[in-house]
Amino acid sequence: MDKVNTISLFPKGEKLPNEWFTGEAFLSPLVSKDKNNEFSAGAVTFEIDARTNWHTHPKGQVLIVIEGSGFYQEKGKAARAITKGDVVNIPENVEHWHGASAKTSMTHIAITNFKEDVQVTWLKPVTNEEFNQANNQK
Amino acid sequence: MDKVNTISLFPKGEKLPNEWFTGEAFLSPLVSKDKNNEFSAGAVTFEIDARTNWHTHPKGQVLIVIEGSGFYQEKGKAARAITKGDVVNIPENVEHWHGASAKTSMTHIAITNFKEDVQVTWLKPVTNEEFNQANNQK
Repeated sequence: MDKVNTISLFPKGEKLPNEWFTGEAFLSPLVSKDKNNEFSAGAVTFEIDARTNWHTHPKGQVLIVIEGSGFYQEKGKAARAITKGDVVNIPENVEHWHGASAKTSMTHIAITNFKEDVQVTWLKPVTNEEFNQANNQK
Repeated sequence: MDKVNTISLFPKGEKLPNEWFTGEAFLSPLVSKDKNNEFSAGAVTFEIDARTNWHTHPKGQVLIVIEGSGFYQEKGKAARAITKGDVVNIPENVEHWHGASAKTSMTHIAITNFKEDVQVTWLKPVTNEEFNQANNQK
């Protein structure tokens, strides 16, 4: 595991529901939507093999990877390996998933914009076949 | 110095102008304002003794401290010591400064909202007397 001998920036937080996440994913909230911030922000930790379902954001989301490495994949495209220090500016209404790899955990900050009161539309789980394909691509 | 033996998450970036910052402060841009994001985000590193001028944000700013420690102070209030893992949700139109301490550097992510095209109004430098007072308070 890649987190031995490192100290996490944030508490791991609460487990995220398996209705929308495969495996062990956790959310540590950082800031809520308010009169100034048209977004919420949190640190999401994906243990090895954990990932979001496929989903879309009506007004996009920014990921900032702060520990470990994993994947970001848009539907119909190759998965992109992402690692500590990487930033992903996810467009609106694009079906995608993100998460750990089969060998590494990953923590990212997520800044998720609101469109009116909606941040995300959840879709189907990422299958083991889809996840393995991301892990095995060259 | 507190950064020996650690690896920074982001490149240190470009030096910030001494018109608005005292000492050695650096910006590594992470994401720009666009049609979804009503903010820009960047990692700001303050070397020992470095700090912003006093300033205000018309629509607030969120700080997420990712390395080291330093201070956040609103005008007329005691300085608040902030450290790795701390989050500050800065209100709109409140005069304040942030930066390193006299003994530690600090890096924070800053998520800075726009009000129309304005993010910040810069004011006077934080004097050495003001900075020393923050460092010497109990």
